[in-house]
Amino acid sequence: MKGYRDEAKDFLESASISIGDRIRIEKNGQCTQGLLMPRTEGGASNHVVLKLDNGYNIGIKVTENTKIEKLEEGREPTMGGGESEITPDPEKPDVTIIGTGGTVASKIDYRTGAVHPEFSPSEIYNSAPKTTEIANIRTETVCNVLSENMNPELWSKIGRAVGRELKEGEADGVVIAHGTDTMGYTASALSFMLQNPPKPVVLVGSQRSSDRPSSDATMNLTGAVSAAISDLGEVCVVMHGSSEDEFCLIHRGVKVRKCHTSRRDAFQTINDVPLGIIRDSEVEFLREKKGRNEDEGVEVKDGFEEKVALIKVFPGINPEVIEGLVDKGYKGIVLEGTGLGHVPQPLYPSLERASDLDVPVAMTSQCIWGRTNLRVYSTGRDLLDLGVFSLGDMLPETAYVKMMWVLDKTQNKGEVKSLMKENLAGEITPETRPDVFLKPKTSSE
Amino acid sequence: MKGYRDEAKDFLESASISIGDRIRIEKNGQCTQGLLMPRTEGGASNHVVLKLDNGYNIGIKVTENTKIEKLEEGREPTMGGGESEITPDPEKPDVTIIGTGGTVASKIDYRTGAVHPEFSPSEIYNSAPKTTEIANIRTETVCNVLSENMNPELWSKIGRAVGRELKEGEADGVVIAHGTDTMGYTASALSFMLQNPPKPVVLVGSQRSSDRPSSDATMNLTGAVSAAISDLGEVCVVMHGSSEDEFCLIHRGVKVRKCHTSRRDAFQTINDVPLGIIRDSEVEFLREKKGRNEDEGVEVKDGFEEKVALIKVFPGINPEVIEGLVDKGYKGIVLEGTGLGHVPQPLYPSLERASDLDVPVAMTSQCIWGRTNLRVYSTGRDLLDLGVFSLGDMLPETAYVKMMWVLDKTQNKGEVKSLMKENLAGEITPETRPDVFLKPKTSSE
Repeated sequence: MKGYRDEAKDFLESASISIGDRIRIEKNGQCTQGLLMPRTEGGASNHVVLKLDNGYNIGIKVTENTKIEKLEEGREPTMGGGESEITPDPEKPDVTIIGTGGTVASKIDYRTGAVHPEFSPSEIYNSAPKTTEIANIRTETVCNVLSENMNPELWSKIGRAVGRELKEGEADGVVIAHGTDTMGYTASALSFMLQNPPKPVVLVGSQRSSDRPSSDATMNLTGAVSAAISDLGEVCVVMHGSSEDEFCLIHRGVKVRKCHTSRRDAFQTINDVPLGIIRDSEVEFLREKKGRNEDEGVEVKDGFEEKVALIKVFPGINPEVIEGLVDKGYKGIVLEGTGLGHVPQPLYPSLERASDLDVPVAMTSQCIWGRTNLRVYSTGRDLLDLGVFSLGDMLPETAYVKMMWVLDKTQNKGEVKSLMKENLAGEITPETRPDVFLKPKTSSE
Repeated sequence: MKGYRDEAKDFLESASISIGDRIRIEKNGQCTQGLLMPRTEGGASNHVVLKLDNGYNIGIKVTENTKIEKLEEGREPTMGGGESEITPDPEKPDVTIIGTGGTVASKIDYRTGAVHPEFSPSEIYNSAPKTTEIANIRTETVCNVLSENMNPELWSKIGRAVGRELKEGEADGVVIAHGTDTMGYTASALSFMLQNPPKPVVLVGSQRSSDRPSSDATMNLTGAVSAAISDLGEVCVVMHGSSEDEFCLIHRGVKVRKCHTSRRDAFQTINDVPLGIIRDSEVEFLREKKGRNEDEGVEVKDGFEEKVALIKVFPGINPEVIEGLVDKGYKGIVLEGTGLGHVPQPLYPSLERASDLDVPVAMTSQCIWGRTNLRVYSTGRDLLDLGVFSLGDMLPETAYVKMMWVLDKTQNKGEVKSLMKENLAGEITPETRPDVFLKPKTSSE
């Protein structure tokens, strides 16, 4: 009875109900059916938490006139590693879920209540039963880190694991369960390592752990598996598309960023429409995308140069920031300039020195939306003269990851610049769309 | 005939029309009335540009069946500095417009076509005639820089100029014409220098210069003067609220950021509703705000400590970035962490060293929306143990400016932390609003 105590525990025990059982609760004339979830420590003592069939969890307060009934015995908890106990169905596509850590992977085991990163097909079944209806699920754990501790070496490791699954494992699609903090960076890293993937490579996370009533883990995981068996040949991120449990969105890996610290719809496509929308595991594409192309082989070009910095520019920034990087032998610098891609004039000599030492300096914008253009104002043209080059509407985070990837492949300054400006994985939107920006609230209601 | 050549020049000269004249153009049965604007160099040779009465500029192509008529002689161009040639009306409120440079100020003189920062009341009249109908306009130039070159010293200079105008100049409100690149930073700086201002202090800019047909300068300037005579006792930013010329929005100075490189509605209030909306110079407030309070005196607390850095955190960031700042004697660091306010573990020793040397380290989030919370995950609690403190939903840019301002007032670590966490000018929203986030486009139309 993991996590339950006092009234709630007594109430459940009186009906011989265990975690995982399918139950029905009646209260004030309302009936609710679902699977009994474990509680985290320290929750209110008089609530029970049910996972509804739509994947949403709700808490119900136990009062004197609450009635409970067991509808079906729960499955026995299994603690297995990667082994499946569900017989694969040859009619269904095969999807591999790769665990890397983070909220979605580490807490998915709600039957035991333990926070651990290993998750087996049966645990996935209990958490998101729909996924095993639409695909044969295989699981693998590559690492176990909170995503703030993700790093370029792990990006390469994940990339190689994805390549193996698609090639030797013959998966029809791969899902990567990842913490949300740096999921956008990892999505970019995979997009450059696996340019033109023949099958979907889907990152998924959750903003609320699956033992919390408002968890988004189940719906996101179901959406991610749906995307992984769809007609897609791209690296993408699947997360909630609104703060309600209405739909998930598929975001291109190089155009997405976490734009909110805690909302379920924190992930947003920048400067473009999302690739697709998923309602009840049905995928609808919203724009041109690369389709599945099983003829193409899988090539993993891993490796990232770590001597690269992403520097946000601000009024009063001291040139010693840039000088320090050049002195320490940095191989590349990505600037988050102001507006169209500007920096204060006192930085110019340090940028000139970087240029003289063949350290490429690329310009992005801290505005996030829109695109850099160094030809509008004289200050932008000055930067072009100093050898700084701009990257269109590429996100700063994507540009940083791309420069690390490019510098691992070549350190020839001309080649670096030309590769950085080339649209390798959809990271540059050819034209600015007028219909994809913020809409402020303009009424007082 | 500044900027006109070939067909357009011949066409205008044939009717003895000069820049600034009110004219009427008839073409294909359509009539258009407005003031003739100068052209920039290099434009098409067969277009004339008119400023319509709603402030919008349009270009009209001259063809064989285009007819032109002069309705009214333009005002003689004046080149004056701060002197008004329009007699002040004692019934109207007094507004001082302070020029600092940037697109809105430097190109406002469309009668001479010269790009210079001085602008006189008569030039304002020609550019935005509505402003002089609602207020007596006085002008003053404090500096002339593109806003990427704005710096803490100039922030103080602008703050002192605002204080003088409100106190000795007895202005009812002050408008500051500013480049858009760093207008959010300057708005924050003024918010801390002038806490609880008795009257409106309004920053305004334009995303397109006033000699371009799609300029937003006129409407923004009219909106800014309307806000400056409204019932407001805050530092705010007034800019377009949509990509059409429908309305302007009033944003609180500490909660606004430039979110697009080029759109007219680039400025957005983050984590809250804008303070107000302006339609045709009518101000409607959308939420609680500080009203005008003329009993309160004006106190300008200027000064900013320049040894402060704003550091964006990313996977693979090297601790030497933080170590370098500590070695160089930096007095404070603001981090843009991931998610709820996290950093990779390899940074911990450098943060501990900063803490040991009494260098305050404050946490904000690169998500932009939402608020930091270091108590959710163990990694956040580790940061609290290292002495890092989080700033709620304060914007990273605002936090940077605030730390510079605070460190100029005190360098006692406890006082710095306590002032940074205190809500001095509305920079921390007490509660997260669920209705002020991005709405993605979810259809393919």
